Amino acid sequence: MVLVVGSVALDSVESPSGKVDDSLGGAATYISIAASYFVKPVQMVAIVGGDFPKKHIELLKSHSVDLEGLQIIKDGKTFRWGGKYHQDLNHRDTLFTELNVFQSFNPIIPEKYKKTKYVCLGNIDPTLQKQVLSQIEKPKFVICDTMNYWIERTNVELLETLKLVDILVLNDSEAKQLANEVNLITAAKIILTMGPSKVIVKKGEHGAMLVTEKTIFSAPAYPLENIFDPTGAGDSFAGGLIGWVSKTGDVSDDNLKRAILYGSTMASFCCEKFSVDGLLSLDESKIQFRYKEFVNLSKVIE
Amino acid sequence: MVLVVGSVALDSVESPSGKVDDSLGGAATYISIAASYFVKPVQMVAIVGGDFPKKHIELLKSHSVDLEGLQIIKDGKTFRWGGKYHQDLNHRDTLFTELNVFQSFNPIIPEKYKKTKYVCLGNIDPTLQKQVLSQIEKPKFVICDTMNYWIERTNVELLETLKLVDILVLNDSEAKQLANEVNLITAAKIILTMGPSKVIVKKGEHGAMLVTEKTIFSAPAYPLENIFDPTGAGDSFAGGLIGWVSKTGDVSDDNLKRAILYGSTMASFCCEKFSVDGLLSLDESKIQFRYKEFVNLSKVIE
Repeated sequence: MVLVVGSVALDSVESPSGKVDDSLGGAATYISIAASYFVKPVQMVAIVGGDFPKKHIELLKSHSVDLEGLQIIKDGKTFRWGGKYHQDLNHRDTLFTELNVFQSFNPIIPEKYKKTKYVCLGNIDPTLQKQVLSQIEKPKFVICDTMNYWIERTNVELLETLKLVDILVLNDSEAKQLANEVNLITAAKIILTMGPSKVIVKKGEHGAMLVTEKTIFSAPAYPLENIFDPTGAGDSFAGGLIGWVSKTGDVSDDNLKRAILYGSTMASFCCEKFSVDGLLSLDESKIQFRYKEFVNLSKVIE
Repeated sequence: MVLVVGSVALDSVESPSGKVDDSLGGAATYISIAASYFVKPVQMVAIVGGDFPKKHIELLKSHSVDLEGLQIIKDGKTFRWGGKYHQDLNHRDTLFTELNVFQSFNPIIPEKYKKTKYVCLGNIDPTLQKQVLSQIEKPKFVICDTMNYWIERTNVELLETLKLVDILVLNDSEAKQLANEVNLITAAKIILTMGPSKVIVKKGEHGAMLVTEKTIFSAPAYPLENIFDPTGAGDSFAGGLIGWVSKTGDVSDDNLKRAILYGSTMASFCCEKFSVDGLLSLDESKIQFRYKEFVNLSKVIE
């Protein structure tokens, strides 16, 4: 079983391929749906308002997402985010952020979730991430995502949280920022001294990199020609990763390499449609097929 | 045997790690020295002035570089370039460019070079690249490097030259510029319609990508923590690549993947010291060791 905490949102996204309004989004949503292809149920801890559409609840349930931890604030409004991607899809402008009920999010872990071994902390306030961990009895493996906003504004709290996590997942510019170091490898190694025993650096169209005490692993990006909407790609990555680790129960470096390719697989599917649509109609054979493509992408016949 | 054409220069380079003045540089220099570890002799066609130090001539000879094609203009000055790298080493400012004798470079291929099968056209005016090819009888395999300067100023001539080459090597922003397309994969596929049957996109700290009609291959970058001087890394890459292809006589996609890792190996050595110093004291075991590291960097145990 996997426990996921993070945002559930209604996203309005514009990209060169089109536009959607108030579509299902949020880190916890992407992580949970992606993980659901590997392990069931996925226990989600999040908050929404009374305006959160019932069809989204049904969709999450249909993916075996356990919603006992989803707080529904009847007279509140769901977190909303709006963004517009540039032509090259590597950059986006945030058009608006309405925190709404998310502003008073106090993650309470239901009793039956407290023994969960695999925990994925989506990108939220590090103080809340720590608060979640304090409620879990003995997590075996904790993945934590963060971003520049928290590195800049809550650095002390983030460093406290990092002491409790196994893997920190963040993008390359954030890794350099957190470590205050321009060389990415050195930056990752500095982060290893902050608590996590493994760091995964997401590099968007350039793939991802795992750095542990003993290993450096470089994963390619999937050569996508038609990217509709990169929103949630990083969260889908984390979802595939924690899903595979939880399914196999193996936290070795060798298995993490596989987990990164499963994460990359889910991220690539995510980008092919708007909102979570790219994650909805997958099955084991589609996932296996793309995973093999990932393995072959960097393979050299010796 | 390999034929290399390109610049031979005296470079003045400043990086966060130090500074050198009038040190040996130029595309043909890096390509030739890197290739010399795979195949001997390397036939170099280039031009220098009477001020070109004898010790550099000796150095090239000691790496089995055949200098019959090196024009020495006694009363001319050697091409000089000066650049300064930013703290992150991904960006640099050109401080000066003095073309000198290079301005009137007219590459003449010595008789005994004309049957050479493997040709590496360093980054020079595409009209000169074409002129070189017109003097070679039946090249088996032609690699061509280019840059934004030629894409912008001599586009028509470049397109003519591209019809005659097997592999175009260029960096990611140049590929997008040449194809007028923001998606890198689509850009590479557009370039395949211009003549080359294979495109290699160099992505600096993110590695390299091979795109052919049938294959996409993603090669990692070596996780270097101490980069002294990235000057010549792309040329060392091309040198390792043509060296391996020439040594094995195998131009299949599978062998090109290996060639890319050998090219990446030579590029990584190049960055570890100033000028060509990182390429000078290598041997087969050092090269093999790093090549294996490259193979393992992306390897997943299935």
